[in-house]
Amino acid sequence: MEFASDNTSGAAPAVMAALAAANAGHAPSYGADPAMDRVRALIREIFAAPRAEVFLVATGTAANVLALSCLCPPWGAIYAHAEAHVDVDECGAPEFYTGGAKLVPIAGAHGKLTPEGLGRAIAATRRGDVHSVQPGAVTLTNLTEAGTAYTPDELARLTAVARGQGLPVHLDGARFANALVATGATPAEMSWQAGIDILSLGGTKNGCLGVEAVVLFDPAPAWEMQLRRKRGGHLFSKHRYLSAQMAAYLENGLWLQLARAANDRAAALEQVILAAPGARLMHPRAGNIIFAHLPREVHARAMAAGAHYYLWPFGQSLNGPPEEPLSARFVTSWCTTEAEIGAFAAVIRDRD
Amino acid sequence: MEFASDNTSGAAPAVMAALAAANAGHAPSYGADPAMDRVRALIREIFAAPRAEVFLVATGTAANVLALSCLCPPWGAIYAHAEAHVDVDECGAPEFYTGGAKLVPIAGAHGKLTPEGLGRAIAATRRGDVHSVQPGAVTLTNLTEAGTAYTPDELARLTAVARGQGLPVHLDGARFANALVATGATPAEMSWQAGIDILSLGGTKNGCLGVEAVVLFDPAPAWEMQLRRKRGGHLFSKHRYLSAQMAAYLENGLWLQLARAANDRAAALEQVILAAPGARLMHPRAGNIIFAHLPREVHARAMAAGAHYYLWPFGQSLNGPPEEPLSARFVTSWCTTEAEIGAFAAVIRDRD
Amino acid sequence: MEFASDNTSGAAPAVMAALAAANAGHAPSYGADPAMDRVRALIREIFAAPRAEVFLVATGTAANVLALSCLCPPWGAIYAHAEAHVDVDECGAPEFYTGGAKLVPIAGAHGKLTPEGLGRAIAATRRGDVHSVQPGAVTLTNLTEAGTAYTPDELARLTAVARGQGLPVHLDGARFANALVATGATPAEMSWQAGIDILSLGGTKNGCLGVEAVVLFDPAPAWEMQLRRKRGGHLFSKHRYLSAQMAAYLENGLWLQLARAANDRAAALEQVILAAPGARLMHPRAGNIIFAHLPREVHARAMAAGAHYYLWPFGQSLNGPPEEPLSARFVTSWCTTEAEIGAFAAVIRDRD
Amino acid sequence: MEFASDNTSGAAPAVMAALAAANAGHAPSYGADPAMDRVRALIREIFAAPRAEVFLVATGTAANVLALSCLCPPWGAIYAHAEAHVDVDECGAPEFYTGGAKLVPIAGAHGKLTPEGLGRAIAATRRGDVHSVQPGAVTLTNLTEAGTAYTPDELARLTAVARGQGLPVHLDGARFANALVATGATPAEMSWQAGIDILSLGGTKNGCLGVEAVVLFDPAPAWEMQLRRKRGGHLFSKHRYLSAQMAAYLENGLWLQLARAANDRAAALEQVILAAPGARLMHPRAGNIIFAHLPREVHARAMAAGAHYYLWPFGQSLNGPPEEPLSARFVTSWCTTEAEIGAFAAVIRDRD
Repeated sequence: MEFASDNTSGAAPAVMAALAAANAGHAPSYGADPAMDRVRALIREIFAAPRAEVFLVATGTAANVLALSCLCPPWGAIYAHAEAHVDVDECGAPEFYTGGAKLVPIAGAHGKLTPEGLGRAIAATRRGDVHSVQPGAVTLTNLTEAGTAYTPDELARLTAVARGQGLPVHLDGARFANALVATGATPAEMSWQAGIDILSLGGTKNGCLGVEAVVLFDPAPAWEMQLRRKRGGHLFSKHRYLSAQMAAYLENGLWLQLARAANDRAAALEQVILAAPGARLMHPRAGNIIFAHLPREVHARAMAAGAHYYLWPFGQSLNGPPEEPLSARFVTSWCTTEAEIGAFAAVIRDRD
Repeated sequence: MEFASDNTSGAAPAVMAALAAANAGHAPSYGADPAMDRVRALIREIFAAPRAEVFLVATGTAANVLALSCLCPPWGAIYAHAEAHVDVDECGAPEFYTGGAKLVPIAGAHGKLTPEGLGRAIAATRRGDVHSVQPGAVTLTNLTEAGTAYTPDELARLTAVARGQGLPVHLDGARFANALVATGATPAEMSWQAGIDILSLGGTKNGCLGVEAVVLFDPAPAWEMQLRRKRGGHLFSKHRYLSAQMAAYLENGLWLQLARAANDRAAALEQVILAAPGARLMHPRAGNIIFAHLPREVHARAMAAGAHYYLWPFGQSLNGPPEEPLSARFVTSWCTTEAEIGAFAAVIRDRD
Repeated sequence: MEFASDNTSGAAPAVMAALAAANAGHAPSYGADPAMDRVRALIREIFAAPRAEVFLVATGTAANVLALSCLCPPWGAIYAHAEAHVDVDECGAPEFYTGGAKLVPIAGAHGKLTPEGLGRAIAATRRGDVHSVQPGAVTLTNLTEAGTAYTPDELARLTAVARGQGLPVHLDGARFANALVATGATPAEMSWQAGIDILSLGGTKNGCLGVEAVVLFDPAPAWEMQLRRKRGGHLFSKHRYLSAQMAAYLENGLWLQLARAANDRAAALEQVILAAPGARLMHPRAGNIIFAHLPREVHARAMAAGAHYYLWPFGQSLNGPPEEPLSARFVTSWCTTEAEIGAFAAVIRDRD
Repeated sequence: MEFASDNTSGAAPAVMAALAAANAGHAPSYGADPAMDRVRALIREIFAAPRAEVFLVATGTAANVLALSCLCPPWGAIYAHAEAHVDVDECGAPEFYTGGAKLVPIAGAHGKLTPEGLGRAIAATRRGDVHSVQPGAVTLTNLTEAGTAYTPDELARLTAVARGQGLPVHLDGARFANALVATGATPAEMSWQAGIDILSLGGTKNGCLGVEAVVLFDPAPAWEMQLRRKRGGHLFSKHRYLSAQMAAYLENGLWLQLARAANDRAAALEQVILAAPGARLMHPRAGNIIFAHLPREVHARAMAAGAHYYLWPFGQSLNGPPEEPLSARFVTSWCTTEAEIGAFAAVIRDRD
């Protein structure tokens, strides 16, 4: 019953096998390995984006902040949802990489920005007033931090607002595959066709060891991106191990299969949770993350039985009235088993 | 005949096996994995440094610049050999991570600083003059960029100069294991006992996929280091894969076995090279790197026969008088075979 | 009727005279001028702070961001009122100088933080969680952006919250003299005795040409401050002209006389404004800034008569229902005349 | 006998008078003052550059580093003479403002770069190699740090090298007026016609209190410059005092008259110095700076008689063999008097 995070999961067998295979012999370093050519070709094909440039790094933070630093000058405002990882979970990495840009957090129900909310935030930045930071870039997240998904149409409406203000758009796709599976959209529909300029395409949480692709649909900043990656210490000498992961991940639709498994387990877990008296969702679930209220005594029993997940937000206590609802986050992954879901169902049922 | 760089080699079987083993089940993320405890314990034991703090990253650049940013303020001068990787091969990463410190390159024969040279460079920085950057930190490299090795005594004489000026010392140990094997020194003798404050302990070039340990012999900046690592995007969520590599690398002396193999092959290759008429070394070889002059025609034949290595410095041409010596760099690794050495010997012998 | 800002005013005659006097002959550069010794002695005496270190710069932004960069590391959170100049009017200068710290805006009525609000904001920063920026520093402003004043007791309650969390406190005193006059507090009471670590002591808005003193009550970061000032390009070669201004400003209580004049004119203007039917204050006035609602037609008449001030916030229009109240900001300065107040009274009275 | 630096001199009477005049009444702040329009018009006319954009700051360091940060990205190399102020006397300010660019010091006789030396340095930067910083910008200084002057032709040959490599060129003109007087060149010939993109036009050392103009001959980065100036804390609220200085400085050729006075005094002083037995110049004098060797006993007598100047480089001692030559720097300014020169001549003559 491991629902704490998808980053506690391991790597998929096919990815591990590809890594082992990649180990044979010598390979050119620093991204000149043939496997990287394969990655580039795969992404261009899968995204129907023949001019896209692709760069691999090992962490989502690196992917996000390198992208933002190519899109936003030091004096820029970066518009993000108030719960966005880049603003609340990266220890100021965007500020570091951009040379001091300012994150502008924007509220929005269920982890999603609205065109109106985004528009208001941009309008509130005094463009042309030298005393103020200037509109710089927009960053969106799909799946969102609330576990919801933007549809391509919703993304397009947001990027239209950005474009209307001359702003480029980054998409944090740490869980991009889960969003595709959740919405049925194609990679192209969910990215450049919806107005995304740079995508952080996550592999780590969804069956890789540690690899993310930065996909530049507009290849113009490709050289800058390479220099920034090097300066950030993110250019791997034995780059083949990043390439091998990403190639295996994308080959034959593995990434979507893994995401589908995670989403399906989450759907089942959602049903289990909602079957508990007093249970209700905090956000509509789209992919592999569930936010739900459950009575305190259910949490107590579940954790006593060995279920791992977080009360969310932090700071809630298992001590208190048993019927009082506490909010929690449950995350499934590609390797969550039906048995784990069943075990959790048994815990919830088992109340006496 | 792959002598271009040790970073074109793969990972050692034991490291790959450890990675596969680490893949089982779930593991806490962001460095809380039990394997990291093992890494920490191993390093403390191997270095006889029970208070050392250890942090893993995936690239040597990251290790170096995170270390330097903890040791040197933005207005500091960082003293380094004129050929040091941090000054000439990291695209300004130290400047980026330190917030604008200034590298001070210092000449020195065979890639090594002398106490006199270091002392003169520090003395030339106008301490206490607000118009000048201030002495900040010293960074050394062992093996050096010239393939030579500092002995512990030589390091100690350099760190004494630094200490006399109140400066902390970083050691870039991308090839630390090769240096230990070359000199017979213990890890402690070659690091904290010689006055090193922070060590970048390389794994990548010597049989790992991509892992380096930043070892803080003085644990004081441990928390700062963690925050800087996160801000740099270098904190791995699935950290177990870094831990597994490093643990396997250090267990049972594997790291030294791998380095010994590389050094032994280099010794053999050195003999082969020196057997060529007109050959001579540019620097005395200590570990797994050879810099040598060979007649142009030997290079031409070797490369025609499929030998991979770099004419060094770049920019020399295979077209020209056949007897003219051209300088080149040869690097062996843990996986260089005796057969490769033999093949190169055959090429050199085979001149008619 | 110039009420747009105190920075449209000129310099006081005594300051101009001091500048002219300072021009005679040669003087040591870069702060070694004897007039700087006089400034240092004056500030130490006036603030009853014999160990204070003092550095002069020419702009308030420079004073603020140099102070913050000495108090807060790049990974720190800087707690500030949501309307604070450092967050909304300095184009990201704090982010630039600190190397990427994050401003945390905190709401508070009438431009003032409450201990509870500050405490909540600090508590919301996940201390010890490497994914989050860490509590770094608190910055307060007195007079506030809303024209209100903190009393020493109010400041002390806020700095106690900061101190309880181990955080240093900066005070933006661009209108420090106005705050002293408004509250009757002594300089010591309003600064170090209330827990302030570094004060930006403003001269520019209150009768100087362009000079601010950064006062370090704890002298520990004095050398760092000097280096940061130099790196920021804020160390004047002909420093005597900064010293001369500041010395004249502080000698014989001139700074308080100038502030008293400004405050007194504001008190008179407040009475004039409140005499208008439909007028009401937005914030209780403490010093030389008035925020008030007036009927649109009053604004229209005033501006037609040549009164200069800003509708506040920007974006309100003089076109619309005449009785509808519009909000505005009025600022007096040391050189505002009773005649200007009288003229404005005449405009307001004159409604037919 | 004040020859220590031109920054120990005061401001010219006309500049002080303009400052006093500027003090009357109210003026728009932050550069919207009418005097700034006058400055802009003057510079455009004087430089025959109708599209030039002009921004004022108070220090030469600010002018230089703002210019460089507009011309060079964080991963850029900035080519400068090894003695250039930006590299050795600004405490890393260029690194700070550019976000970590790397200064590349280039040797050159008498403080001057040669096209060959510049070309070699640029060629040594591995363009297109991601491991290396990339060619970014060239910065020249006129008068040079050695007191020599580039002619327009010499500048043009250097900027042609830069242009051939796609690099923009900054000119540090802290003593630009002295260089014009020394060479007889027009402002246009010595700047944009010679290929300069941004000029730091100094006022401070030559009769102002503290003002430098950043002149953008290509107006493209004007808005970026404004934002960087604000973020650097260099946008003056009471900007009129910068404008007034610069306008007075440029009106009616005052700047050239002041520079001519300084240069003429230096010419006279040079004759006096060369009359001393054993005297010889270190560099050919062009403007108001003289580097010369004089016997130790001459220095001892001069200093005992109250002459102020620096033995150069620092660290030489007045104790030692009386006939041994010591090198020294002498600087005259607009206010150096013939009497001072005469007094020095008397000292030198007076050897018994």
